[in-house]
Amino acid sequence: MSKAKTGGNEDETRKRVSRKRFQGLWVSNAIMADVWQSSMDHAVAVARKAGEMVRGALKDDRTVMTKSSAVDLVTQTDQKVEQLIIQSVKEKFPTHRFIGEESVAAGESCNLTDDPTWIIDPIDGTTNFVHAFPFVAVSIGFSVNKQVEFGVVYSCLEDKMFTARRGRGAFCNGEPLQVSEQTDIHQAIVATEFGSSRDPVAVDHIFRSLRNILCLPVHGVRGAGTAAINMCLVASGCVEVYYEIGIHVWDVAAGSLIVSEAGGVLMDVDGGDVDLMSRRIVAAQRTSNRQRSIAEDRQRDQVLQPAERRRSTSELMVSMYAESLNFLSSDACGCFESRVRTCLHG
Amino acid sequence: MSKAKTGGNEDETRKRVSRKRFQGLWVSNAIMADVWQSSMDHAVAVARKAGEMVRGALKDDRTVMTKSSAVDLVTQTDQKVEQLIIQSVKEKFPTHRFIGEESVAAGESCNLTDDPTWIIDPIDGTTNFVHAFPFVAVSIGFSVNKQVEFGVVYSCLEDKMFTARRGRGAFCNGEPLQVSEQTDIHQAIVATEFGSSRDPVAVDHIFRSLRNILCLPVHGVRGAGTAAINMCLVASGCVEVYYEIGIHVWDVAAGSLIVSEAGGVLMDVDGGDVDLMSRRIVAAQRTSNRQRSIAEDRQRDQVLQPAERRRSTSELMVSMYAESLNFLSSDACGCFESRVRTCLHG
Repeated sequence: MSKAKTGGNEDETRKRVSRKRFQGLWVSNAIMADVWQSSMDHAVAVARKAGEMVRGALKDDRTVMTKSSAVDLVTQTDQKVEQLIIQSVKEKFPTHRFIGEESVAAGESCNLTDDPTWIIDPIDGTTNFVHAFPFVAVSIGFSVNKQVEFGVVYSCLEDKMFTARRGRGAFCNGEPLQVSEQTDIHQAIVATEFGSSRDPVAVDHIFRSLRNILCLPVHGVRGAGTAAINMCLVASGCVEVYYEIGIHVWDVAAGSLIVSEAGGVLMDVDGGDVDLMSRRIVAAQRTSNRQRSIAEDRQRDQVLQPAERRRSTSELMVSMYAESLNFLSSDACGCFESRVRTCLHG
Repeated sequence: MSKAKTGGNEDETRKRVSRKRFQGLWVSNAIMADVWQSSMDHAVAVARKAGEMVRGALKDDRTVMTKSSAVDLVTQTDQKVEQLIIQSVKEKFPTHRFIGEESVAAGESCNLTDDPTWIIDPIDGTTNFVHAFPFVAVSIGFSVNKQVEFGVVYSCLEDKMFTARRGRGAFCNGEPLQVSEQTDIHQAIVATEFGSSRDPVAVDHIFRSLRNILCLPVHGVRGAGTAAINMCLVASGCVEVYYEIGIHVWDVAAGSLIVSEAGGVLMDVDGGDVDLMSRRIVAAQRTSNRQRSIAEDRQRDQVLQPAERRRSTSELMVSMYAESLNFLSSDACGCFESRVRTCLHG
């Protein structure tokens, strides 16, 4: 792994970000021993190697098989890349556990325990891969006690390495990431996907929500074709919110930490706490109207109870995006804040 | 302009492609004088300069104004980039005419005449630009006698320079482009956009067509957020078809030649001949089931009448994508060919 390639100034940037965040109270994470740093370094290295395999396979190995439906695709490359990652990790960390998309498809269990666990999507965006559409990601999350400790998303056709370590910020190719500061929903870009179900009821539900969102109105709707990259787009500030129902833990484990370390929030589509195993997620920016530093956000979090935190400006914004949208479609005026409160509280 | 950057081996590649295409009959375009080559070279150079301006403006100049609706955006950068291009061309080619998105918005006429005309979209994907979403293009088409002679689309955040000269192929950073060979609609990716209208009738129409397409089923639906890049994705083989109603000539003039020079087809959404001024377009791959060289395609074109050409496999596929889709939604079985014929011929 080339240090320059993975962001040679990342250590320096981490320290700078930590200083900025914790200001006078700087009890630096950067100088504390990090028991999972060697695992994270390995994840970055193996993600890059996996990305090389994906790029190589684009030229000659895109034979397609299907899984749950005619448009839920898998290729031999998905399986080979997952094997590459698991084998490599097993050699270095023999006691760690795994949840891998292709292993689960092959019959292995999908239980998240307290043990150190690598949560792997070898190719997030298999349909994109099959078509050489430019968003294809290797996604590696790592959890301990059911909490994601680090996340690595390598967008291998763009050659962008997104990384996050809990408490130490999120980066793309070594540059720190921060979510959008746009809190006016009418000026937001919303990301979502149509998914791989073609069941008419499911499709109708997806289209109804999407139509309501589009007509709020918002600036636009986009979908990269991969959950991991959609979440990295939120973390990068290009997209204000991403929501999807039907995703799996391997699609979002790494991305979820990248979003939260970039200052974003994660919620369930009903506004409750996110559960990475629930197959539903909303990821969004969180800044309020005034310019706030991430440090201030974090200090505030420490004194608010979870229920109050859920009602902060942008978390309210988040919670409106899915099921609440039916309430909103006919309400053409009224300010954003009051519409959100109405949705949540009566 | 750095020659290496614009594809240093482009001249060589052009010759190679021409040899391949015309085989024994090689009466090379490459050695014939090209009256528009210096204009095209200038277009590539000015597109790259414009792209630098766009990238620079991402950091500090994204003040947004609106045009036809609250989500039809324009920035000062759109206007500055168009002025840069027009000024630069006027100095070098004082007799040429212009159709520019921002000039038309400011009241200038939008008439395509037989004169040499530069058709300019300074920022295709202004909403993406405002959000730093990674697809933003400078699009420059050049027409003479209402025929596009060359097209240049510079995807400036990806640093991809797409170019096409009529009769000489299409390229991305100097590498030749070819459309997808996938003719099974169920294995296609379809690109389209929701547009900037939020009129409920228009939105309903868009959603109805899109739902029908998704449930054919197809592999997926994507939208880059710019017509020019959607067309380059067709030319690159990442997307089988792109359709949109509501686009303008400056969105598609350059891209249309890039698609056709990559072996694709252009049609109106009703299956008729495309008219770049009509604000409706379908761009798609055209290869049949057997592997055909572009040379064979071109030779075949010369002996078929237009009406027959419209009925070739993939052109039939093209013509089903828009208005014909209402016929298809309830037809869950039946082979693709027969469904298309039914749509077209009764």
